[in-house]
Amino acid sequence: MQTYELIQKTRRLEPLCEEEIRFLVEGFTKGEIPDYMMSAWLMAVCCQGLTSEETVSLTLAMRDSGECLDLSPIGAVTADKHSTGGIGDKTTLLIAPIAAACGGYVPKMSGRGLGFTGGTIDKLESIPGFRTNLELDEFLEATRKTGCCIITQSGNLTPADKKLYALRNLTATVDSIPLICSSIMSKKLALGADCILLDVKYGSGAFMKTPEDAEILARLMVEVGKAAGKKCRAVITDMNAPLGAAVGNALEVAEVIRMLRGEVRNSLTDLATSLSAQMLVMSGKGDIVECRKMAEQAISSGAALEKLRIMIGMQGGERRVCDDPSLLPQAACQMTVKSESRGFVTAIQSEEIGLACLGLGAGRTAGRSAIDFGAGVEFARTVGDFVGQGDPLFTVYGANADLCADAAARIRRAITIKEAPAVQRPMIHKIIE
Amino acid sequence: MQTYELIQKTRRLEPLCEEEIRFLVEGFTKGEIPDYMMSAWLMAVCCQGLTSEETVSLTLAMRDSGECLDLSPIGAVTADKHSTGGIGDKTTLLIAPIAAACGGYVPKMSGRGLGFTGGTIDKLESIPGFRTNLELDEFLEATRKTGCCIITQSGNLTPADKKLYALRNLTATVDSIPLICSSIMSKKLALGADCILLDVKYGSGAFMKTPEDAEILARLMVEVGKAAGKKCRAVITDMNAPLGAAVGNALEVAEVIRMLRGEVRNSLTDLATSLSAQMLVMSGKGDIVECRKMAEQAISSGAALEKLRIMIGMQGGERRVCDDPSLLPQAACQMTVKSESRGFVTAIQSEEIGLACLGLGAGRTAGRSAIDFGAGVEFARTVGDFVGQGDPLFTVYGANADLCADAAARIRRAITIKEAPAVQRPMIHKIIE
Repeated sequence: MQTYELIQKTRRLEPLCEEEIRFLVEGFTKGEIPDYMMSAWLMAVCCQGLTSEETVSLTLAMRDSGECLDLSPIGAVTADKHSTGGIGDKTTLLIAPIAAACGGYVPKMSGRGLGFTGGTIDKLESIPGFRTNLELDEFLEATRKTGCCIITQSGNLTPADKKLYALRNLTATVDSIPLICSSIMSKKLALGADCILLDVKYGSGAFMKTPEDAEILARLMVEVGKAAGKKCRAVITDMNAPLGAAVGNALEVAEVIRMLRGEVRNSLTDLATSLSAQMLVMSGKGDIVECRKMAEQAISSGAALEKLRIMIGMQGGERRVCDDPSLLPQAACQMTVKSESRGFVTAIQSEEIGLACLGLGAGRTAGRSAIDFGAGVEFARTVGDFVGQGDPLFTVYGANADLCADAAARIRRAITIKEAPAVQRPMIHKIIE
Repeated sequence: MQTYELIQKTRRLEPLCEEEIRFLVEGFTKGEIPDYMMSAWLMAVCCQGLTSEETVSLTLAMRDSGECLDLSPIGAVTADKHSTGGIGDKTTLLIAPIAAACGGYVPKMSGRGLGFTGGTIDKLESIPGFRTNLELDEFLEATRKTGCCIITQSGNLTPADKKLYALRNLTATVDSIPLICSSIMSKKLALGADCILLDVKYGSGAFMKTPEDAEILARLMVEVGKAAGKKCRAVITDMNAPLGAAVGNALEVAEVIRMLRGEVRNSLTDLATSLSAQMLVMSGKGDIVECRKMAEQAISSGAALEKLRIMIGMQGGERRVCDDPSLLPQAACQMTVKSESRGFVTAIQSEEIGLACLGLGAGRTAGRSAIDFGAGVEFARTVGDFVGQGDPLFTVYGANADLCADAAARIRRAITIKEAPAVQRPMIHKIIE
């Protein structure tokens, strides 16, 4: 089989068979197919697309390029969740304990953030003592006992994806729906859970700008998941404004704790409840109405908070943060901005919020640079809320007054206040089964 | 300037400016832009195209990547010719002496063949003693004296094209009209002639399969040539059957000599006369009617044969081949195939003829393998001719009987004989000025 001919075929819109795609992925992973041939093929995929059958073949070949986890020691139906990423997205920290409190099992491997703010792992590491690098047997045992455990990705999972992603990142071949799908799904499949819930976001702060594009990606990922023998659903959600009121690592953990304590309730609460319910339905715990009720009760009864407390303890973290979030890292400086007018918050440009938080040190600018866990922003008002003149609008947290002032100005410009409230879009646009 | 962003732009159909294209070509030639980025850009060009302005910029940047010849020592208007290649294409060997006999100046640098049969240089080297590696000053002096000289390409001309072509050849990015155009035209511009005549072929034996595609390429090349300040014309010609009666290096030289001696006349004679006339018009020798007449007289008077004889002598070759073509290398074995039926030759699949000649050793299979100068085929009948049962159809020349028998069978299958003659298409489809 000649790599040249396979590039030619994709260029000419002639579909590749499973064997041909496996040849490309295996040859590239082993270093037998050079980068310059693979980047030509990736660009042909970006311009000409792949069929859904080809995308399935690509995903499975990428899955099989490295280890696949065996979650059977957990001894129960397991569920995983993936979000395509967004500003202030702390849903994993809510869903894992909620689902665990309802009898679900969520063994979760997450990533560090490379974008605007930290990833789930960074958020957890803001909890004093929290260990995200458990051994595999510890991870499985913790999930079996508690129902949830969140660690950083380890082992030789999907080396093909690592190598392909590095090349895509250098050759302007990142934004291709079949390539995004195979990258996400190959990792999810290698992680081995029985059920996969996908949170595909659209909007100014998301990779997919429109609900239509998000739906194309979601349908393809669900098709691939099912073809691989998994239960798979996707929820298409709005990412035009930050999720919840807090953006920043420790600030987001604090928001999660306050939400599970019943002290805070906003659109994020509804989203987390809905996603948890979807995960429980897939795990066979009941129908959607029953599962939603279970998820709500897990919050109101304090059972989800208790699961979070146990999980933190099992992973070596300071459990008392669940009683007193002020034990989390605090920024040296804070600055509250008040509204100079009265009206309704109609929009918050989430991409701008992300960039402001990056400036505050809440995310990494390149590689492994240190994160300021205490840095970020807390909104006193979010989209849809009324604000009076002189009322607090948001508080910025950072290492010094200069950093806070810069971020505050940028964040203020990203908030639109109008006399009349805007029509509220529902957080969940569509569910793809 | 970021290479990544330029790849992204081409992928997104956003045109690059001249400076951006020069950055890509210079960076790649110097080795600053890695192969894997360039192949991604080349594939984006193949899939998304380039504007004609971008193609002009690309061609000029490639031209400027190395030396450009200064032909001013010749002291006259110079003309060059390029053919996109075809089976049995020996027009350069006819046009150069015809034009020279009419007062034109044709300093020609040609290539060796890498395809089915030898290139112009291989054909000339089948003449005993013929030197194609003259020094530049010898080349200019020979052209000034004789009006024509044909040597192999030397010096550091268009290194960008060499490097780009090598990469295209490995990444399935060869067949792209803007990339083909820039590759051909950058070399032609670096060679420095004032007038450029392009013979763009279409048909089964050509790179462009349809006259429409050939016309797109031809118009683009003429536009680029004019943008670079040259006189430039393109002739779109039929390559559905081999050109002339002979295919193979020494066999083609013999056909040229017999044609200039007036012993042979076929559709190739008309094509060579027309192309010579176009070249003379561009060189300012008269209008098309006058120049055509001059070209015809150059053949009938023997003046073109005399120019060929002088050129061969100036380049160290055996001049007596012009009187006795049997002095050219002869194959060890020959085999004549007779027609088993009577009728008209309606088609000869030229690609099949090329492959049969390659099998006989008339071309290179990879790199610099030796060529059997005597090998090839001579058609006793070409398209349009009547053939009686038992009449000779063609003669195969090769090193041994086995090779000849294999080629003979393949060539016979490539010839279609029907009771009624086919409608003859004119050799020249269109002229683009």
